[in-house]
Amino acid sequence: MAVDFQQLAVEGVRGLMPYQPGKPIDELARELGLKEADIVKLASNENPLGPSPKALAAIQAELADLTRYPDGAGFELKKALCNKLSTDAYNIGPEQITLGNGSSDILDFITRVFVNDGDDVVVSQHAFAIYGLVARMVGAHCIAAPAKNYGHDLDAMLAAITEKTRIVFITNPNNPTGTWLGKTELVNFLDQVPENVLVLLDEAYFEYVNEADFPDGIELLPHYPNLVITRTFSKAYGLASLRVGYGVSSPELADLLNRVRPPFNVDSFALAAATAALTDDDYVAQSIAINNAGMQQLTAAFKALELSFIPSVGNFVAFRVPDGVNAMDVYKQLLARGVIVRPVANYEMPEYLRVSIGTEAENTAFIYALTAVLS
Amino acid sequence: MAVDFQQLAVEGVRGLMPYQPGKPIDELARELGLKEADIVKLASNENPLGPSPKALAAIQAELADLTRYPDGAGFELKKALCNKLSTDAYNIGPEQITLGNGSSDILDFITRVFVNDGDDVVVSQHAFAIYGLVARMVGAHCIAAPAKNYGHDLDAMLAAITEKTRIVFITNPNNPTGTWLGKTELVNFLDQVPENVLVLLDEAYFEYVNEADFPDGIELLPHYPNLVITRTFSKAYGLASLRVGYGVSSPELADLLNRVRPPFNVDSFALAAATAALTDDDYVAQSIAINNAGMQQLTAAFKALELSFIPSVGNFVAFRVPDGVNAMDVYKQLLARGVIVRPVANYEMPEYLRVSIGTEAENTAFIYALTAVLS
Repeated sequence: MAVDFQQLAVEGVRGLMPYQPGKPIDELARELGLKEADIVKLASNENPLGPSPKALAAIQAELADLTRYPDGAGFELKKALCNKLSTDAYNIGPEQITLGNGSSDILDFITRVFVNDGDDVVVSQHAFAIYGLVARMVGAHCIAAPAKNYGHDLDAMLAAITEKTRIVFITNPNNPTGTWLGKTELVNFLDQVPENVLVLLDEAYFEYVNEADFPDGIELLPHYPNLVITRTFSKAYGLASLRVGYGVSSPELADLLNRVRPPFNVDSFALAAATAALTDDDYVAQSIAINNAGMQQLTAAFKALELSFIPSVGNFVAFRVPDGVNAMDVYKQLLARGVIVRPVANYEMPEYLRVSIGTEAENTAFIYALTAVLS
Repeated sequence: MAVDFQQLAVEGVRGLMPYQPGKPIDELARELGLKEADIVKLASNENPLGPSPKALAAIQAELADLTRYPDGAGFELKKALCNKLSTDAYNIGPEQITLGNGSSDILDFITRVFVNDGDDVVVSQHAFAIYGLVARMVGAHCIAAPAKNYGHDLDAMLAAITEKTRIVFITNPNNPTGTWLGKTELVNFLDQVPENVLVLLDEAYFEYVNEADFPDGIELLPHYPNLVITRTFSKAYGLASLRVGYGVSSPELADLLNRVRPPFNVDSFALAAATAALTDDDYVAQSIAINNAGMQQLTAAFKALELSFIPSVGNFVAFRVPDGVNAMDVYKQLLARGVIVRPVANYEMPEYLRVSIGTEAENTAFIYALTAVLS
């Protein structure tokens, strides 16, 4: 009798459904026979500005060493991050940094380090799907506290913490809702989390936020030894293709996270491009400016179309399809017109679609297609 | 009282020592104040030929999409791999492939899918260190069967399999010893492994071997549903900087491995460069030719120096320092002369050093430095 390998798999893996990324441009082109240049992808919160010139130059300089392994210690990138993140009030050292193949790597590491089979992690309803995936892989339960107006309800999250809880995942701002937590409420929450429960504060969209009370997680680190901050180069720094992000924490936590880090998880091109991108302030400023303008453009269009949307401080916005209209149908009809957005039914938001902020031309193409689909 | 996070970590992680990679050139340059151009690194089994022109061209073509996420499905690379690996006798489909951020990713995936806390995995003494690391991370015991003449003793490995064994890791050829298993003995072994025990056959150095009885793991796949083959682009294909490797197995096993694969584990540049490198037969042929010549050069030198070495079919060779000489001292004195090789005391070979095959000039520099150190 043939062996059923599915039954041999560890329990957490047996029922696992892989993460569903945004549809790639070339995949849609193949499926519908479209030209790639005619497709507008606003599905993965990518930076529409195009590459940072400094990152491109750094990649060119790496080409000669294509056959060499990366620097597993990430010496230069960690040094550049410490320069960028340290302030007069708080100095960040390289022993506090964990480099990731995207910041999602850090979510996996913290789970592998601290979560046993049968433990719990706590997330918010509508939170990033990867938290639940990495928890289920190690056999843990992912407890989703109900959201409040699509944002994190920190009181509900506190109430969800039990003896079995090892990590609470907070996303600020949250993806896919674009909601955010102010410094006062976040600090109040951190003060109440038991000190033996880890808090992973995911700040993937940090650079886009321009709100006076928005907290900088790094500044909170000296006060909360159980806190790990994650950030990414995939969004405002425009390096999604290369997969690089990082965690910042106490040296003690970083030492533990680095023990489960694969030795060469960040490749040489990613290390070099990220190091250079950190110095490209103009690029980040332009990215934010495009995002602000595009957010205006899209939300004005939603108002004109009488569509409700969730106010967002990220580089994306979730809008609600009209009553009686099926969001997946809208998604598919947009695809047929060469526009890729993101269904979020798997985030318990079946009546919403998430659209990333593009260039003015991309936003216009999306608005035009959406208007046609809904009329 | 401050929380001891080390004690909060899962048991397998608490005692974990991270993998020790070869010393990077820039690190030695910083430490000793040497120029990078004056350093010869023969420590990480890297390809000394320099970049494949086709891989370089593919990277250039990828630059415009720097801000876009990779194709998480790896459509083009899987298609190219299927073309490369399929034969008249056996067709490989994309549903049989698992892409890895280096083939070491696949070693981690198979362990996460099949190994529970308290289970066993079986390896050979002197086997690649990553097998034990990934097993210990999930709380498993790594049972090392004693080697025979530095190579795998397959009978001893069979004898080490118990009810608790989930995976046997076979490396062919083995790193760091360079020993290899013939087809007859490997098939005989596979016939005796219980069908519910996975066999991971790591063929990272496959392309370098030119022995008539050397087995091609892919051809064995149809006969052993419990078999997973791994290969890499880091060696003969010269893409170590980009981190890309793959597993080949039944579709059922590939489906399970892909469930724990992070969605964008292989970046866009790695996907593109690997796809192109698969078509660069000239590059691989030159890589093998350089390796054969360099192996001759190094082993002739060892003989002249009256040093014993383990005959190797890989792109590296382990040599024994003379009696009464400390291998770590030789390593450090070589470093001081700008030559980086690899200590292998952590492979239970404290009296050996491993040297990768370089260009003729690099090999000459190594031989010159070694001769000076030993005299």
